[in-house]
Amino acid sequence: MYKVKVYVTLRESVLDPQGAAVKHSLQSLSYNEVSDVRIGKYMELTVEKSERNVEDVVKEVCERLLANPVIEDYRYEIEECVAQ
Amino acid sequence: MYKVKVYVTLRESVLDPQGAAVKHSLQSLSYNEVSDVRIGKYMELTVEKSERNVEDVVKEVCERLLANPVIEDYRYEIEECVAQ
Repeated sequence: MYKVKVYVTLRESVLDPQGAAVKHSLQSLSYNEVSDVRIGKYMELTVEKSERNVEDVVKEVCERLLANPVIEDYRYEIEECVAQ
Repeated sequence: MYKVKVYVTLRESVLDPQGAAVKHSLQSLSYNEVSDVRIGKYMELTVEKSERNVEDVVKEVCERLLANPVIEDYRYEIEECVAQ
Protein backbone atom coordinates (compact mmCIF):
# COMPACT_ATOMS: atom_id res chain seq x y z
CA MET A 1 0.00 0.00 0.00
CA TYR A 2 1.24 3.47 -0.78
CA LYS A 3 0.35 6.84 0.68
CA VAL A 4 0.64 9.47 -2.02
CA LYS A 5 0.58 13.21 -1.42
CA VAL A 6 -0.28 15.32 -4.43
CA TYR A 7 0.17 19.10 -4.56
CA VAL A 8 -1.51 21.00 -7.38
CA THR A 9 -0.66 24.67 -7.85
CA LEU A 10 -1.59 27.26 -10.44
CA ARG A 11 1.26 28.11 -12.79
CA GLU A 12 3.13 31.30 -11.92
CA SER A 13 1.75 33.13 -14.95
CA VAL A 14 -1.89 32.34 -14.15
CA LEU A 15 -3.92 34.83 -12.09
CA ASP A 16 -5.18 33.49 -8.77
CA PRO A 17 -8.36 35.37 -7.81
CA GLN A 18 -8.96 33.11 -4.79
CA GLY A 19 -5.50 33.91 -3.46
CA ALA A 20 -6.07 37.61 -4.09
CA ALA A 21 -9.33 37.44 -2.09
CA VAL A 22 -7.59 35.73 0.83
CA LYS A 23 -4.78 38.29 0.74
CA HIS A 24 -7.34 41.08 0.78
CA SER A 25 -9.11 39.50 3.79
CA LEU A 26 -5.81 39.17 5.63
CA GLN A 27 -5.05 42.82 5.01
CA SER A 28 -8.52 43.77 6.32
CA LEU A 29 -7.59 41.85 9.47
CA SER A 30 -4.39 43.97 9.64
CA TYR A 31 -1.95 41.24 8.66
CA ASN A 32 -0.11 43.65 6.40
CA GLU A 33 3.05 41.57 6.49
CA VAL A 34 1.39 38.98 4.23
CA SER A 35 2.27 40.29 0.78
CA ASP A 36 1.16 37.42 -1.42
CA VAL A 37 -1.11 34.36 -1.25
CA ARG A 38 -1.41 31.58 -3.81
CA ILE A 39 -3.95 28.82 -3.31
CA GLY A 40 -3.59 25.27 -4.48
CA LYS A 41 -4.94 21.83 -3.76
CA TYR A 42 -3.52 19.12 -1.60
CA MET A 43 -4.66 15.52 -1.96
CA GLU A 44 -3.83 12.34 -0.12
CA LEU A 45 -4.37 9.14 -2.07
CA THR A 46 -4.15 5.61 -0.78
CA VAL A 47 -3.00 3.37 -3.62
CA GLU A 48 -2.98 -0.42 -3.32
CA LYS A 49 -0.22 -2.47 -4.89
CA SER A 50 -1.11 -3.72 -8.35
CA GLU A 51 0.73 -5.02 -11.39
CA ARG A 52 1.21 -1.40 -12.54
CA ASN A 53 4.00 0.80 -11.24
CA VAL A 54 2.60 3.17 -8.64
CA GLU A 55 4.43 6.18 -10.04
CA ASP A 56 2.95 5.63 -13.51
CA VAL A 57 -0.52 5.37 -12.00
CA VAL A 58 -0.08 8.57 -9.97
CA LYS A 59 1.26 10.54 -12.95
CA GLU A 60 -1.61 9.41 -15.15
CA VAL A 61 -4.21 10.19 -12.48
CA CYS A 62 -2.75 13.69 -12.02
CA GLU A 63 -2.75 14.43 -15.72
CA ARG A 64 -6.19 13.01 -16.41
CA LEU A 65 -8.17 14.07 -13.38
CA LEU A 66 -6.47 15.85 -10.51
CA ALA A 67 -4.69 18.68 -12.30
CA ASN A 68 -5.35 20.70 -15.41
CA PRO A 69 -1.93 20.64 -17.11
CA VAL A 70 -2.76 23.75 -19.14
CA ILE A 71 -2.89 26.05 -16.13
CA GLU A 72 -1.65 23.95 -13.22
CA ASP A 73 1.55 22.27 -12.12
CA TYR A 74 1.62 19.25 -9.87
CA ARG A 75 4.11 17.40 -7.78
CA TYR A 76 3.77 14.29 -5.65
CA GLU A 77 5.44 12.28 -2.94
CA ILE A 78 5.01 8.52 -2.73
CA GLU A 79 5.56 6.72 0.52
CA GLU A 80 5.29 2.97 0.93
CA CYS A 81 3.39 1.77 3.99
CA VAL A 82 4.02 -1.56 5.58
CA ALA A 83 0.75 -3.38 6.33
CA GLN A 84 0.14 -3.62 10.06
CA MET B 1 10.95 37.69 3.57
CA TYR B 2 9.53 34.28 4.30
CA LYS B 3 7.87 31.73 2.07
CA VAL B 4 5.29 29.83 4.08
CA LYS B 5 3.55 26.65 2.92
CA VAL B 6 0.31 25.85 4.70
CA TYR B 7 -1.47 22.51 4.42
CA VAL B 8 -5.04 22.28 5.65
CA THR B 9 -6.68 18.87 5.87
CA LEU B 10 -10.02 17.65 7.16
CA ARG B 11 -9.76 15.80 10.46
CA GLU B 12 -9.77 12.02 10.15
CA SER B 13 -13.22 11.71 11.70
CA VAL B 14 -14.84 14.20 9.31
CA LEU B 15 -16.49 12.89 6.13
CA ASP B 16 -14.94 14.13 2.90
CA PRO B 17 -17.59 14.13 0.14
CA GLN B 18 -15.25 15.84 -2.34
CA GLY B 19 -12.67 13.09 -1.81
CA ALA B 20 -15.36 10.43 -2.19
CA ALA B 21 -16.44 11.99 -5.50
CA VAL B 22 -12.86 12.02 -6.81
CA LYS B 23 -12.37 8.40 -5.74
CA HIS B 24 -15.58 7.43 -7.53
CA SER B 25 -14.39 9.22 -10.71
CA LEU B 26 -11.04 7.43 -10.52
CA GLN B 27 -12.79 4.09 -10.21
CA SER B 28 -14.97 4.94 -13.24
CA LEU B 29 -11.70 5.53 -15.12
CA SER B 30 -10.59 2.02 -13.98
CA TYR B 31 -8.01 3.14 -11.45
CA ASN B 32 -9.21 0.53 -9.00
CA GLU B 33 -5.92 0.55 -7.11
CA VAL B 34 -6.81 3.95 -5.63
CA SER B 35 -8.66 2.95 -2.48
CA ASP B 36 -9.01 6.29 -0.73
CA VAL B 37 -8.82 10.00 -1.52
CA ARG B 38 -8.83 12.88 0.96
CA ILE B 39 -8.82 16.45 -0.31
CA GLY B 40 -7.27 19.39 1.45
CA LYS B 41 -5.97 22.85 0.71
CA TYR B 42 -2.46 23.98 0.04
CA MET B 43 -1.48 27.64 0.35
CA GLU B 44 1.72 29.52 -0.28
CA LEU B 45 2.07 32.78 1.61
CA THR B 46 4.77 35.39 1.22
CA VAL B 47 5.30 37.09 4.56
CA GLU B 48 7.49 40.16 4.94
CA LYS B 49 9.64 40.64 8.00
CA SER B 50 7.94 42.72 10.68
CA GLU B 51 8.32 43.31 14.40
CA ARG B 52 6.13 40.25 15.03
CA ASN B 53 7.49 36.73 15.02
CA VAL B 54 6.62 35.08 11.70
CA GLU B 55 5.51 31.83 13.33
CA ASP B 56 3.04 33.64 15.59
CA VAL B 57 1.61 35.47 12.59
CA VAL B 58 1.23 32.26 10.57
CA LYS B 59 -0.44 30.39 13.44
CA GLU B 60 -2.89 33.22 14.04
CA VAL B 61 -3.69 33.54 10.32
CA CYS B 62 -4.34 29.77 10.10
CA GLU B 63 -6.64 29.76 13.12
CA ARG B 64 -8.54 32.89 12.17
CA LEU B 65 -8.90 32.58 8.43
CA LEU B 66 -7.23 29.73 6.58
CA ALA B 67 -8.46 26.73 8.55
CA ASN B 68 -11.57 25.93 10.52
CA PRO B 69 -10.10 24.40 13.68
CA VAL B 70 -13.36 22.61 14.49
CA ILE B 71 -13.14 20.27 11.50
CA GLU B 72 -9.70 20.88 10.02
CA ASP B 73 -6.08 20.37 10.99
CA TYR B 74 -3.27 22.48 9.62
CA ARG B 75 0.47 22.34 9.44
CA TYR B 76 2.96 24.76 7.96
CA GLU B 77 6.56 25.08 6.85
CA ILE B 78 8.38 28.40 7.06
CA GLU B 79 11.37 29.06 4.89
CA GLU B 80 13.40 32.24 5.02
CA CYS B 81 14.30 33.75 1.64
CA VAL B 82 17.31 35.91 1.15
CA ALA B 83 16.45 39.02 -0.87
CA GLN B 84 17.99 38.87 -4.34
